[in-house]
Amino acid sequence: MSETSAPSIGIAGLGLIGGSLALAVKASGYADTVIAWDSDAEPLEKGLSAGVVDAVTTDFNDLLAKSDILILAVPTQAAGPLLEVALQEPTRVRVITDVASVKAPLVAVAAKFDSECAKRFVAGHPIAGSERSGVEAADANLFRDHRVILTPTEEADDVAVRDVAALWTSLGAQVSYMSADEHDRVLAATSHLPHMLAYALVDTLAASPTKEDIFRYAAGGFRDFSRIASSDPVMWRDVALCNREALLEVISDFENHLHSLRAFIDAGDGESLRSLFSDAKTVRDDFSRDLEQGAARSQHQNRR
Amino acid sequence: MSETSAPSIGIAGLGLIGGSLALAVKASGYADTVIAWDSDAEPLEKGLSAGVVDAVTTDFNDLLAKSDILILAVPTQAAGPLLEVALQEPTRVRVITDVASVKAPLVAVAAKFDSECAKRFVAGHPIAGSERSGVEAADANLFRDHRVILTPTEEADDVAVRDVAALWTSLGAQVSYMSADEHDRVLAATSHLPHMLAYALVDTLAASPTKEDIFRYAAGGFRDFSRIASSDPVMWRDVALCNREALLEVISDFENHLHSLRAFIDAGDGESLRSLFSDAKTVRDDFSRDLEQGAARSQHQNRR
Repeated sequence: MSETSAPSIGIAGLGLIGGSLALAVKASGYADTVIAWDSDAEPLEKGLSAGVVDAVTTDFNDLLAKSDILILAVPTQAAGPLLEVALQEPTRVRVITDVASVKAPLVAVAAKFDSECAKRFVAGHPIAGSERSGVEAADANLFRDHRVILTPTEEADDVAVRDVAALWTSLGAQVSYMSADEHDRVLAATSHLPHMLAYALVDTLAASPTKEDIFRYAAGGFRDFSRIASSDPVMWRDVALCNREALLEVISDFENHLHSLRAFIDAGDGESLRSLFSDAKTVRDDFSRDLEQGAARSQHQNRR
Repeated sequence: MSETSAPSIGIAGLGLIGGSLALAVKASGYADTVIAWDSDAEPLEKGLSAGVVDAVTTDFNDLLAKSDILILAVPTQAAGPLLEVALQEPTRVRVITDVASVKAPLVAVAAKFDSECAKRFVAGHPIAGSERSGVEAADANLFRDHRVILTPTEEADDVAVRDVAALWTSLGAQVSYMSADEHDRVLAATSHLPHMLAYALVDTLAASPTKEDIFRYAAGGFRDFSRIASSDPVMWRDVALCNREALLEVISDFENHLHSLRAFIDAGDGESLRSLFSDAKTVRDDFSRDLEQGAARSQHQNRR
């Protein structure tokens, strides 16, 4: 922390992530006050009456006037315009961060401002979420033991970067650093592609003439596989549009791999199928093992 | 039960499913004795020393001589030849069933025999499993509250059908009936397609130049989505080969739906994306609700 008194946190967008952040910073004692802005009055009323936040406003400039640290927790497409307003002129806000799933578009917005303004912005992305959405699904432990990727530019103020990292660390998250472009390519593969496949699978089965039997006899594999198709449609529309290039590339890669697999089945090539399945199993088993050991290891990581 | 004394159960194939069946029929008191055959001595030794089964043999004819009810619990391609041997001549075995994931090939094997032999066979498939495999992963509760689909032909003896249904019911499973072809089409969509997609996804990511970062930053969505790629490669090779036609058809359907989704992203068509994601979310949310209510409802189901 770069100040002695606890900062006032402003959260723009009171959904699952914004609400969980509010609960978490209050529970951790990191923040003195949490004030929330949203374009919609309903989540603000819900959040205030549930004690998720201390104060609410529907005036974004009011939020800027009352926050030391501002966190943009709106869907990716909505974050850009808010960041532009926040960077326009000096306010009480000394650090700005966000939680959007795609980072390059926000870094591009900040690049339009001179570095004296832009240095306050440290883009970030908690690798945490839920297929549930809305402030009513808020969870103070959502970020605990999860990774948060920060993608600060060269212009970013060191103190601002440290403050954002300290905030996430105080919530039990593990902070990593990479460039915005690298983040967007990696997340296209690990998160955005699986979501597209889950949506496409449910879409495919729902269009089947035997739809009713299909869902009646679907088992655990399908349940796990398709859970993420219950995710928020607006958030994922924004991700698909904002990370268009990287996502198109991994979808094409996937289409090629699926096509090879299909060709093995078509040709009755059992040996190639067994080999492909066996290689995938090895990779997936290694991933499970790494995941279990990951929490311990990543606590030793520092900013590169 | 059509006999007063508890039957001797023969299990051919002592893997996850065979071992779980052995534990479950012993725990339920349904069986007096469980004897296991496997082509490999290692799982038999493990199963015997862990008390999963009462006796073991590597001679399939020995198994036939000692079992009242025979359950084929080997991968789909291995079940056909064993069924042929079991149906060849009268033995102690009065009921034969199986647990293979694809039903039409086994029904076709039985159709080669006259009905006096074939009437003992009642094909079945428990919609339960795990990405773990082997007798060491056996679980007495694997089938509890899971569905089992039986696909008896017209020739099947009513008493044999009742015995197989009673066996599964005694293990806490819910029995449903359909034709082998219907089963194979439905399972191609609900189970076989998701497994192919999970294998193809892991295969795609493993081939990426940024493979290490990808797996380091993969989150819960990917973990759930890809879990089934840790499933047994031989079992899934057999499924892919034995349900070739139905599987090729659903893969093509999926490819078309994914291609439409990709075209929306390519065109920047946010409204079509939001609408597709929103429809899929509605279907998936309904499925979750039905699944929660399903256990209660299906207890009232009887054989059609």
